[in-house]
Amino acid sequence: MNSKMLMLGKKRSAIREIFEFGNKLRAEIGAENVYDFSLGNPYPPAPDCMRETLEKLVQNPAVHAYTSAPGAQVVRDKVASYINERFPINQPSSLIYMTEGAAASLCSVLYATVDSKDDKVVVFTPYFPEYKVFVESAGASVIEVPCNEEFKLDKNNLLKVIDKNVVAVIINSPNNPTGVVYPKENLQEIFDVLKAKEEEYAHPIIVIADEPYRELVYGDKEVPYIPTMYDNSVVCYSYSKVMSLAGERIGYVAVSPKMENAQDFFLAVCGAGRSLGYVCAPSLFQFAIVENIDKTSDFTTYANNGKTLYNHLKSLGLDCVNPDGAFYLFVKAPNGKAEEFCEKAKKYNILLVPSTSFGVDGYVRISYCVSEKTVNSSLPAFTALMQEYNK
Amino acid sequence: MNSKMLMLGKKRSAIREIFEFGNKLRAEIGAENVYDFSLGNPYPPAPDCMRETLEKLVQNPAVHAYTSAPGAQVVRDKVASYINERFPINQPSSLIYMTEGAAASLCSVLYATVDSKDDKVVVFTPYFPEYKVFVESAGASVIEVPCNEEFKLDKNNLLKVIDKNVVAVIINSPNNPTGVVYPKENLQEIFDVLKAKEEEYAHPIIVIADEPYRELVYGDKEVPYIPTMYDNSVVCYSYSKVMSLAGERIGYVAVSPKMENAQDFFLAVCGAGRSLGYVCAPSLFQFAIVENIDKTSDFTTYANNGKTLYNHLKSLGLDCVNPDGAFYLFVKAPNGKAEEFCEKAKKYNILLVPSTSFGVDGYVRISYCVSEKTVNSSLPAFTALMQEYNK
Repeated sequence: MNSKMLMLGKKRSAIREIFEFGNKLRAEIGAENVYDFSLGNPYPPAPDCMRETLEKLVQNPAVHAYTSAPGAQVVRDKVASYINERFPINQPSSLIYMTEGAAASLCSVLYATVDSKDDKVVVFTPYFPEYKVFVESAGASVIEVPCNEEFKLDKNNLLKVIDKNVVAVIINSPNNPTGVVYPKENLQEIFDVLKAKEEEYAHPIIVIADEPYRELVYGDKEVPYIPTMYDNSVVCYSYSKVMSLAGERIGYVAVSPKMENAQDFFLAVCGAGRSLGYVCAPSLFQFAIVENIDKTSDFTTYANNGKTLYNHLKSLGLDCVNPDGAFYLFVKAPNGKAEEFCEKAKKYNILLVPSTSFGVDGYVRISYCVSEKTVNSSLPAFTALMQEYNK
Repeated sequence: MNSKMLMLGKKRSAIREIFEFGNKLRAEIGAENVYDFSLGNPYPPAPDCMRETLEKLVQNPAVHAYTSAPGAQVVRDKVASYINERFPINQPSSLIYMTEGAAASLCSVLYATVDSKDDKVVVFTPYFPEYKVFVESAGASVIEVPCNEEFKLDKNNLLKVIDKNVVAVIINSPNNPTGVVYPKENLQEIFDVLKAKEEEYAHPIIVIADEPYRELVYGDKEVPYIPTMYDNSVVCYSYSKVMSLAGERIGYVAVSPKMENAQDFFLAVCGAGRSLGYVCAPSLFQFAIVENIDKTSDFTTYANNGKTLYNHLKSLGLDCVNPDGAFYLFVKAPNGKAEEFCEKAKKYNILLVPSTSFGVDGYVRISYCVSEKTVNSSLPAFTALMQEYNK
């Protein structure tokens, strides 16, 4: 038996542990009395148009057959043309690989990229904890680079640790767990460093843009399209969050046409998919996606929840980042003690995730993909929690 | 870039190459004139009850949310109780892991099993070629053990090559590419060897039962349930073939409750799934499966096609195995020259796969998951092909 796999299976993520605790609490005191901000399961339903499309598609059982391994051609064509409508990139469909969601996108790309156990992949902290699992599974190791105090990318911190073994950098914007969207000039600083290092090291450094929250932004916030800024890049996309289809496992990898040896890299992604046991992305949802490619779920609840919680927590004296996108609020724990804050919050039936799960100390993540009613009912509990600190 | 992944992506399987050639030919002379026996895409549609279930399920967008990583509890319960209805095994749902089809089942189990680069996994030839990809991706190497002349398992051939590095044995029945179902006594011979070797080597040897064709058998052929015969076993199942849902990627892993450290092995499977980027099996089809768990597609076409082709090829003097199950006919090539036979067949618009793809020489695979019309129309083409040999 493989001991690493056993450990991964045994050590459930801290987030899942909290969720399970929530299940116990819900059974005891009723779901309406538990303010569970632990999980990232989308709250609004998939849009109505998705139901209509599915009703129609299931009339034809041919939609359940294998597609080609990289996806049905009609689907890849539609994804590429939609990217080209939105961004100046000339994305050919021949570099689109349909996947079983964001995790599958990331694993396929990482397995295609990593070639030696000395290889390193940069992640910016705080970061989605499964990145470490995927990078190590692909055979490389993670280098953590701290963001600055506003949770933007920090080129000086990158310069301190980058070396010739760095083969890839993961950038996640809108960000889980901070809700930050990196502005164009912030990304540019990082890309300038990476381009210089590509020259110096004489090998490509792949930027992996993990973008499951791309459309989930507030106001008129713009999410720069990384392949228009950095040549050796690949976008990992998923419809889980923006279309509330998290369980259906559907997304794609878009290899930038400007990448060095783009076609070979694409073939390596296909090879990686093959070796990971991805035969083709779920076919019904491949076809369902193409008919709704410009649609999203209704994000009103997220926008309202983010605003309500941000304003309330600020009024209680808590320090947090006003989210640009995604559905997370990253809150500084009183006295910098995250675990203590989470424990105290539990007494008020508030379930939070400590930031140690995301590679930094002293914060908690609030995942506000819940009903507005839950958020509104939680406000007095937050007030009571902070009164305990202030008495 | 990873060179192994690039090679896997570049070297499309021989089966896919032939299918692509078929696409060209179809465009030239019309689909009805091409007798394409290359692919294993199920022919009959998914059963009507599946469409009805899907129509109903898609009314509730909550079915699209994440389930737990090993699958929704209600689904795991139903799968376990169905196994227990059919076989005397006492399968607990706590050892059921829902997967994205057979390839995902196999990869999760192999990654959970393999712990050292010296580890070896036995496959019996001829065999499904992706086994080699999955085993090597998990970090082990394949040992090929030839079946006997009737394509049954051969314990003497196993004894010749088994050594202490063997950690697992893959058994695929009904078999792709031969259509053979291994009888109970044949399996027992192999299990007796393995049990003795487990003693001798003082470590478990896991039997991986790859069973995507379990229900697809002809007449009253019985497929023995391996966990009732061998303790250290795990079943990899998929609904792709038996329910004609190949594109939807839905199946399961059932760890035998009799396995040594069954719960730990199950957790290692969960850990492997996590490290491969499997978040949960597609949720809509998890729920769709439980409502139709005792249903299959209508296999009449397969039964008729198998009989028609077997009888016709025998009448032409070709030597082949009368299939017990699955939808493949394994035919001895005239003069033992498989590639030549496939090339000659192409002139008659018959597309066959040479057995070198399956680890043996001198045979071709006919995949008869096509319409009865296609099979009937192909008979004169087979006659003409054999006349060329006999003139």
